[in-house]
Amino acid sequence: MRHAGVMPPVTTPFRDGELDFAAFHRNVRRWMTTPVAGVVVLGTNGESAYLDEEESQSLVAAAREEVPRGRLLVAGTGRDATRAAAAASTRAARAGADLVLVRPPSFFKTQMNAEVLVRHYTAVADACPVPVLLYNFPAVFGVDIAVAAVEHLSAHPNIVGIKESGSDVARISEVVSAVRPSRPEFAVYCGSAPVLYPSLLVGATGGILALACVVPELCVELYELARAGRHDEACELQRRLTPLARLVTTTYGVPGLKAALDLAGYAGGEPRAPLFPPPPAAVTAIREQLQRLGVVASAEA
Amino acid sequence: MRHAGVMPPVTTPFRDGELDFAAFHRNVRRWMTTPVAGVVVLGTNGESAYLDEEESQSLVAAAREEVPRGRLLVAGTGRDATRAAAAASTRAARAGADLVLVRPPSFFKTQMNAEVLVRHYTAVADACPVPVLLYNFPAVFGVDIAVAAVEHLSAHPNIVGIKESGSDVARISEVVSAVRPSRPEFAVYCGSAPVLYPSLLVGATGGILALACVVPELCVELYELARAGRHDEACELQRRLTPLARLVTTTYGVPGLKAALDLAGYAGGEPRAPLFPPPPAAVTAIREQLQRLGVVASAEA
Amino acid sequence: MRHAGVMPPVTTPFRDGELDFAAFHRNVRRWMTTPVAGVVVLGTNGESAYLDEEESQSLVAAAREEVPRGRLLVAGTGRDATRAAAAASTRAARAGADLVLVRPPSFFKTQMNAEVLVRHYTAVADACPVPVLLYNFPAVFGVDIAVAAVEHLSAHPNIVGIKESGSDVARISEVVSAVRPSRPEFAVYCGSAPVLYPSLLVGATGGILALACVVPELCVELYELARAGRHDEACELQRRLTPLARLVTTTYGVPGLKAALDLAGYAGGEPRAPLFPPPPAAVTAIREQLQRLGVVASAEA
Amino acid sequence: MRHAGVMPPVTTPFRDGELDFAAFHRNVRRWMTTPVAGVVVLGTNGESAYLDEEESQSLVAAAREEVPRGRLLVAGTGRDATRAAAAASTRAARAGADLVLVRPPSFFKTQMNAEVLVRHYTAVADACPVPVLLYNFPAVFGVDIAVAAVEHLSAHPNIVGIKESGSDVARISEVVSAVRPSRPEFAVYCGSAPVLYPSLLVGATGGILALACVVPELCVELYELARAGRHDEACELQRRLTPLARLVTTTYGVPGLKAALDLAGYAGGEPRAPLFPPPPAAVTAIREQLQRLGVVASAEA
Repeated sequence: MRHAGVMPPVTTPFRDGELDFAAFHRNVRRWMTTPVAGVVVLGTNGESAYLDEEESQSLVAAAREEVPRGRLLVAGTGRDATRAAAAASTRAARAGADLVLVRPPSFFKTQMNAEVLVRHYTAVADACPVPVLLYNFPAVFGVDIAVAAVEHLSAHPNIVGIKESGSDVARISEVVSAVRPSRPEFAVYCGSAPVLYPSLLVGATGGILALACVVPELCVELYELARAGRHDEACELQRRLTPLARLVTTTYGVPGLKAALDLAGYAGGEPRAPLFPPPPAAVTAIREQLQRLGVVASAEA
Repeated sequence: MRHAGVMPPVTTPFRDGELDFAAFHRNVRRWMTTPVAGVVVLGTNGESAYLDEEESQSLVAAAREEVPRGRLLVAGTGRDATRAAAAASTRAARAGADLVLVRPPSFFKTQMNAEVLVRHYTAVADACPVPVLLYNFPAVFGVDIAVAAVEHLSAHPNIVGIKESGSDVARISEVVSAVRPSRPEFAVYCGSAPVLYPSLLVGATGGILALACVVPELCVELYELARAGRHDEACELQRRLTPLARLVTTTYGVPGLKAALDLAGYAGGEPRAPLFPPPPAAVTAIREQLQRLGVVASAEA
Repeated sequence: MRHAGVMPPVTTPFRDGELDFAAFHRNVRRWMTTPVAGVVVLGTNGESAYLDEEESQSLVAAAREEVPRGRLLVAGTGRDATRAAAAASTRAARAGADLVLVRPPSFFKTQMNAEVLVRHYTAVADACPVPVLLYNFPAVFGVDIAVAAVEHLSAHPNIVGIKESGSDVARISEVVSAVRPSRPEFAVYCGSAPVLYPSLLVGATGGILALACVVPELCVELYELARAGRHDEACELQRRLTPLARLVTTTYGVPGLKAALDLAGYAGGEPRAPLFPPPPAAVTAIREQLQRLGVVASAEA
Repeated sequence: MRHAGVMPPVTTPFRDGELDFAAFHRNVRRWMTTPVAGVVVLGTNGESAYLDEEESQSLVAAAREEVPRGRLLVAGTGRDATRAAAAASTRAARAGADLVLVRPPSFFKTQMNAEVLVRHYTAVADACPVPVLLYNFPAVFGVDIAVAAVEHLSAHPNIVGIKESGSDVARISEVVSAVRPSRPEFAVYCGSAPVLYPSLLVGATGGILALACVVPELCVELYELARAGRHDEACELQRRLTPLARLVTTTYGVPGLKAALDLAGYAGGEPRAPLFPPPPAAVTAIREQLQRLGVVASAEA
């Protein structure tokens, strides 16, 4: 299966508010030295909501220079209007993306029912030259793609998988049950590191995890342990990783993730306004977790 | 006071998916024959989330051709990134907007606290060549601008008012209490037609109401009755208008509003995908309310 | 109209964790010296959720000793089971209540749809020897009684009104519009002091307000100003009362309300566990507002 | 470990609205022929919110007659007031309960913070003659017991475990991580059948599952497969059980669960008002799932 493994949804480095391409290249080059299956650019953590179309395009092209054809380059191309999502997906494909990750339209939330989402994704997938991944993250987008809609969309030849963010493992399990019988190769990426291990056990095929930006090797190790059925070790590693995963997502968000990258030797840097650097306490807490994981040398060492 | 009265947040007509400028001009010209204080373009109802930057720019310029200098041309220019909101505001001002209506950043909701919002709006107002209106609509944007943040921002010389959407009249009352003592001319626009009358009584200075696209004369009449202290008539008219207001907002949204415009002789038309035309039952319900209000001839006539 | 005016939903005083009947009698006697239309016992603010059936019964009887027949004694008698609500209502009537205020069942929230609520209230009203008031407070009970359900229930001869808590004045307005044509005497009590004035203007007939426990005279004054059409004075008094109203409800809840009563010369005291006395900052803030209103002498006086 | 395995949170049968003790005895007797670890009476599914204190007491005693000392009899004894919860727990213990399951106070939700919950549970556990299980079910109670509060409470000698309802497996994992180091025998019961398998893998010690009322043998089988590390079979059985689990909980609630019991040969019957029997479509859907599981003979057989 091609759409498997662990991928980091990478951050976007800035310098004085502008894209820092040199830092971006360095980061992606380093991720390519780890056993990740590919990278996701322009995702939620890539601050894609804060980039204009030209910047977005350039980042896909820059990533392609670093990601060899044997690994996946995924680009986030969701937009609120169907035509805009289709156009952004086509542009990303032309700039080198292997597949696109399409968040649902989130404006006019109350009108985004299953029927509307099916039409939207069908139109995008029809227009897009590369395969499409659905993206469900109700806590952030305020829109939930019903399991029945996922099942319906999984029949489209150009829709090849879904990223499921959130820690509701029953949801992942039900998506797997809904799509597998008729589409056994449909990819289901877990988007929440604290449930990577249980998600894989109920049928998820991989993970797209903010945590994998910071500790890609450990995330891949957890993935491999789970796939190999080494449950005790997997469970133990899951438990060790969860506190850091929380700090760089729900607790401190993108600012925390970027601080963690700085500590781990990647280029993190400041987010774009209105986001802001994390408080000193965040950096302390993140450093402590990185030390516990042996990624950063402890003070006494 | 200049920032008072009633304004329609106008819709954006499309023809075969593209902007229909001729229809837009006709609509604005007709609104200019009514006693509205101005128009708001590129608001929520203008499907601004579905327009690209060039389209947005063109619509402001087109509206300016129809809106004489004695009336207000307001442009919605909120964006998720601070720099993008500042740039959009500046562009709209250059294209002729008298003031800009800036929705809060809504991505990364949990991080959009009062401090962040104060910084964001301050930066936008510093950069913008024309005055800024804040825009609070928690039910749609998922972000609530705290009263204390509004109070703080009302001290900025280039922030001249706020649009408050939602039917929580206590909130409007508290905003008025917070800003009036030090900034008596601060504008507070009610954004929800079902509470226009009570909002005016507790200190709102005007209304920016989807309903005013369809029945501008009646909305202005309600405004005038309330200002004149003709309470029984105001209360009665409020009660007559509320059912239609519900249909073109919470019940059927922009598709319902556009259908109502078609029935009322304006150019409504279809929304952009993923929005879709309203069901036939919606058109029937809206027609019935327009007949009750005497805007559309009843079947027997 | 009988069901009008302002009533305090009174607190329940405790002494060493047990009902303090002497304090309760003193309080009610004092409220009876003010121009309130009656009192509500066993409401949300009465900590009815923390009282057993015997205590509840005794409080109704105790109140009846102090409330003359010319004023209303209302008892909160909502329960989760229909039979329990009917039984509690009957007991309260026998103990002297003039009417009962029945909160909706709130367990199994997702199943409490309009049809279920109509059946529940109909059964309670059929069984109850005295008239019934509906009680809508979605923010606290997690259940919203649809306007259509209220309209349906308003046809029941033994359902005579509703208490609407929350600051959504559009909701109050729509309830009034729905019930008035066929039941002009149906009572609509505003349950949120910060919107008493606008609620009365759109048709509410009275108020059941935590604030009226502390400053009954001022609440009745606001009610009378609004009814007399003295809008500027009403608006001004509304504005003066809102900050205290917030402190004794949303900000500090029942503990805050009890602290305010202590400051105002009533018997407040401590709530039952798990509630707890308010922090010192709460008492300071409440005292300050009471001083501004002239209810408590200011420090310098 | 004593507090492990699977237990059904049993329903309460009624006949003409009154407790049907004969049916209750028959049901419990039959559950005792299955390999469940015990039974939970007076839980959410037991409609405990609709029972009075005397009925509650009688049910515990009735269950004790059927549950031998080698199996657990757990009684739900949560109340809104601390003193009421302590009293109900003591009464249940005297009537024969081995331990009590205490839901958090859910009235005055916004005030039920971690500190308040710690005090409440501490007081109940201090007073209760038998061990206490915490109960976290934020979707139903509207109150979330913070992981830090659980950690704190796990140090109380009379608090021996928690029931975690909901499908957030990360939460279960974090509770396990928080309590295990200092209290390795602390029980963590999964309360949501669709995540029983993944929950056990991350450290849950057992399950208290509505589904186990209907198909106790299959739930225990899933538990045993997971404990034995037979992952493929566990995953497969989990997948087969999830659709029925949904039908008797989130989809049709207690009415659905009772209908399923009738189909499976237990005494289900009607719930108390305001709950109501499920629609015919529910019964059809539930029968279909029971047939798929081989619990009910299929039509053609």
